[in-house]
Amino acid sequence: MSKKNKGFVQQITDMDGDFAQWYTDVVKQADLIDYGPVRGTMIMKPYGYALWEHIRDVLDNRIKQTGHSNVQFPLFIPESLLQKEKDHIEGFAPEVAWVTHGGSEELHERLVVRPTSEVLFCDYYARNIHSYRDLPMLYNQWANVVRWEKTTRPFLRSLEFQWQEGHTAHATHEEAEIETRQMLDVYTEIVENQLAIPVIRGTKTENEKFAGAVYTLTIESLMHDGKALQSGTSHHLGTGFAESFNITYLDEKGTQNHVHQTSWGITTRLIGALIMVHGDQSGLVLPPKVAPTQAILIPIAQHKDGVLDKARAILHQLTPHIRIQLDDSDKTPGWKFNEHEMKGVPIRIELGPKDIEKNQAVLVRRDTREKIIVSLEALPTALTQLLETIQSDLYQTAKEKQLAKTTSVSSFVEFAASLTSNPGFIRAMWCGETACEKAIKEQTGATARCIPFEQASLSEHCVYCGKEAQKEVYWAKAY
Amino acid sequence: MSKKNKGFVQQITDMDGDFAQWYTDVVKQADLIDYGPVRGTMIMKPYGYALWEHIRDVLDNRIKQTGHSNVQFPLFIPESLLQKEKDHIEGFAPEVAWVTHGGSEELHERLVVRPTSEVLFCDYYARNIHSYRDLPMLYNQWANVVRWEKTTRPFLRSLEFQWQEGHTAHATHEEAEIETRQMLDVYTEIVENQLAIPVIRGTKTENEKFAGAVYTLTIESLMHDGKALQSGTSHHLGTGFAESFNITYLDEKGTQNHVHQTSWGITTRLIGALIMVHGDQSGLVLPPKVAPTQAILIPIAQHKDGVLDKARAILHQLTPHIRIQLDDSDKTPGWKFNEHEMKGVPIRIELGPKDIEKNQAVLVRRDTREKIIVSLEALPTALTQLLETIQSDLYQTAKEKQLAKTTSVSSFVEFAASLTSNPGFIRAMWCGETACEKAIKEQTGATARCIPFEQASLSEHCVYCGKEAQKEVYWAKAY
Repeated sequence: MSKKNKGFVQQITDMDGDFAQWYTDVVKQADLIDYGPVRGTMIMKPYGYALWEHIRDVLDNRIKQTGHSNVQFPLFIPESLLQKEKDHIEGFAPEVAWVTHGGSEELHERLVVRPTSEVLFCDYYARNIHSYRDLPMLYNQWANVVRWEKTTRPFLRSLEFQWQEGHTAHATHEEAEIETRQMLDVYTEIVENQLAIPVIRGTKTENEKFAGAVYTLTIESLMHDGKALQSGTSHHLGTGFAESFNITYLDEKGTQNHVHQTSWGITTRLIGALIMVHGDQSGLVLPPKVAPTQAILIPIAQHKDGVLDKARAILHQLTPHIRIQLDDSDKTPGWKFNEHEMKGVPIRIELGPKDIEKNQAVLVRRDTREKIIVSLEALPTALTQLLETIQSDLYQTAKEKQLAKTTSVSSFVEFAASLTSNPGFIRAMWCGETACEKAIKEQTGATARCIPFEQASLSEHCVYCGKEAQKEVYWAKAY
Repeated sequence: MSKKNKGFVQQITDMDGDFAQWYTDVVKQADLIDYGPVRGTMIMKPYGYALWEHIRDVLDNRIKQTGHSNVQFPLFIPESLLQKEKDHIEGFAPEVAWVTHGGSEELHERLVVRPTSEVLFCDYYARNIHSYRDLPMLYNQWANVVRWEKTTRPFLRSLEFQWQEGHTAHATHEEAEIETRQMLDVYTEIVENQLAIPVIRGTKTENEKFAGAVYTLTIESLMHDGKALQSGTSHHLGTGFAESFNITYLDEKGTQNHVHQTSWGITTRLIGALIMVHGDQSGLVLPPKVAPTQAILIPIAQHKDGVLDKARAILHQLTPHIRIQLDDSDKTPGWKFNEHEMKGVPIRIELGPKDIEKNQAVLVRRDTREKIIVSLEALPTALTQLLETIQSDLYQTAKEKQLAKTTSVSSFVEFAASLTSNPGFIRAMWCGETACEKAIKEQTGATARCIPFEQASLSEHCVYCGKEAQKEVYWAKAY
C-alpha cells in the first residue's frame, strides 16, 4: 500500500481472494447504496442514483429517437389477468409479491405487484388497437418491479429493482422482428459505448428464453471473476399474448389479424456490471461517459495562501467543459485521494502551491494511475481528450480481458477443465437438444448464455453428446 | 357549433352543466389516460405522460439547483417501521395496501406499499447521520405511491400516483424552516410560471396539517367550478420523527442533538389542476411552457401540388425554435382542428394553397380563437412571441377568474350564501379554534384551505363563533 493510503480507515476485501465480498464492500464504500429495511431491498444513494440517471437519460433519448413514447402503467395486476397467458404465469407466479388487503378490508381478488408488465400492456392493447392505422404501437416505461427472490445481491438480484420495459405491437411478424433486433442494437450501443462493456450478442436457447416469448435476443457481458451477466434482453413475443388477450386489428383488406408483439428491458443490474467489469483493488472505476463526476479537483496544502482561490478559479473555468467537482473539505489530501479512487472518479486533478508557481496541474488517471503534468491553459483540452482516451481504453482493456477469459473447446473434458483453469466464456458446439443443455448445466453449473449471431464452426460434434453439431453456443456460469 | 366541427364524432359534456363529467370526458378524449384493470388506477398514455415529463424535468432541475440529490428508496415498508411515529401511522394506516405473501409463502411481517416515505428516510437517517458534518442531508425521490382511496378520479385521487417527495434533515429548527419555505417557493414558481396557475400561499391549520408535522405550508389553486385544489405542500417535521427514530447528530461542541426534518411533495394532481383551471368547452387548453406540442401545423387541401412539401419545409424550419408537429394524416382539416383543440395545443398553424401563394400562414390561438396572419419569414419570431403572450395571458385570465370567485365575508350567513351565489374561495376571519373550523366544515362542506402568508384584517370577530378573530383564513370546498 502506498503512503497516500495513510489515514483512510476503510479497507475493501482483496478482489481475487473473495470477489463476492469485494463487490459488497465496493457498493457500500463507494456510497452507491444502503440496504432497505425489507430483506433484499436497497436504497440507491445520491452517487448510485446519479450513475443510474446518466445511463437512463442516454437510453431514454435513444428510445425516443427510435420512435417510442413513454407511458406509465399501474403497479398492480389482478391475479386473473396474470393468468391469461399460461407460460407467462408459470414463469412468474413463484416469485411475485401478493397484495391481499386494502386499508382494513380483504380484497375480493388478490393483486400482484408487477414483476413485469406484459399482461397490463396486452390488456390495454386489446382495448385500444382496432385498425392497421393504430399500428405500430411503440411504448416504453421506466418503472420499479418486484420479484420475490430468495437470494439477493445489490443491483444484481434484488426484491425490487428499477428498469425500463418496452412493449410494442406490430402488424407483421417481420416488423416485430426488426423491432426486436433494433432494440438489441440500441442496448449494445449503450452498453459498449457508454458503459465501455464489450458484449456477446445472440439468441437465447428455448430453455433460457423469456416466459411467453417466441425467442429472446440477449447481450451477455463477462465479469472480472469470469462469470457472465445477462445485460439486456429483447423478446419477440409473436402472437402468443395477442391470442390469449384477443388483440386484433383490421388490416387494409378488412381482415382481422392478431398483432405481433415485442418487449425489451434493461435494469439497474447494469450498475453491477459496471462495478464487476471495471473495478479494481481500490474500488470502483467508472467510464467517463456515465461518471457522475468526471474529474475531482484536490487542492494540496489548501491552507496556504492562494491555493483555494486558484482551485476555485479552475473549477469555474472547467465547469462548462466537464462534470467536475472541487473537494475543499478539511480531510487530508491522502484521504481524499482514496475516497475518490473508491468512487471511481476517472481523473484526479492535483493542485498545490508548487504547481501554481509553475502554472500547471497534475492529472492522475483512475484506471492506469498514470500521472500527466499539464499547463493550466491547456487543461480544458487535455481533460476532454483524456476522458475520451480513458473511455476508449476501458473498453479495450475489458475486451482484452473478455477474450483472454474465452476458451473454445471441442470436448466435454476440455469444457469442464476450462471452468477451473480459465473461468469465463466457453465457446462450444451444441446439437440443439435441451437435454444436452440441461445435462451440461447440471454437471458443470454453466448455462447456455446465447447462440451468438456470428457463428463459428468449432467442431462437427455436440460438445456433450457427440451428435451432429447444429450451433455454436457461448456457455458460462452466470449471475 | 361552428362549421368546422363537422365530422368530429366525439363530443364532450357541457362544462357548466356537469363539470365532473366534462372532466372525465376531457382526460379520456384528450388522450391523457386510460383506466387500469384495478379499480382507481390509471394508465398515463403518451400525451399525458409527456405532459408530466415536462413538469417533472423543470422541477427536477430546480430541486437539483437548490442543492438536493435524487435517491431511490424501496417500495415496501415493514408494518413495525410504519408504527414508529404515532400520528403518522394513525393518519395513513386506514388507506394503505398490504402485502402479505411473497411467492407461495406467507410473510412473517406484513409489508405496506409506501403511501409516503417518511419512515423509510428516517430509518436511513438514523443509521447514516452521525455528526454535524453530515448535515444538512437534502434528498428527493421521484416515485409511485399507493393510497387505498374509496372514491377515485384520474389525476385527482387515484389508488396509485406518481410524485416527487423531498426529505431533508437539518441541524436546527431555523434551517428546517428556511428549507420548508424555500421548497414552497420553488413549487409556487413552477405552478405559477410553468403551469400558469395562480396560487394562494399559506399555512395549513392544525386540523389540516400533515400527519406528524409541526406545520404544513401549502399552495392552493382554484378550479373552474369554484372548488379548491391543494397543489403542493411543504412540511416542517420538527424533531418528532427524529425522536421516534432516534436520529441524532454530534454538534461542534460534542453534544448529541435530534435533527430537524422537512418533507415536501407535488404529484400528478397538478395535471388535474391544469385541466380544470384552463380547460374550456372544446377540451384541454395547455400553457405553452408545458405543452408537449406547442404548435400543430395543419395543411389545407394537402392533396394539392406543393402544399405538403411547403408544410414539411416549414416544419423543418421551425423545429429548432418550438415544439411543433405536422399533422399530415388523411383526416379532414376540420377533424384535425377539433382533435388538436381537444388536446389543448396552444397554436394551430393553417397552411393552404392560397396562403402559400401569398407567402403567409394563419395562426389560431387555442385560448382566444384569435386568428393572426403572418408572413412565412416572420413565423419563427411570431410564434415564439405568441407562445409567450399565451403563457402570460393564461395566467392573467386564471388570476382574474380566481379573484372573481373570491368573496370576503364577515358573517356566517354571508359565508354560507357565497357558497351557492359565487362558489370559490371565501376569505373570512377565524378565532383559531378547531371546533369552529370543524363546525364550518360540517355545516357548509367548506374546509380551511390555508392561513395566507399575507394577512388582511377583514373583521374583528371569528366568522363562526363571533369571538376575537386571530387569523384570516381562505376557505373553500375542495378536491
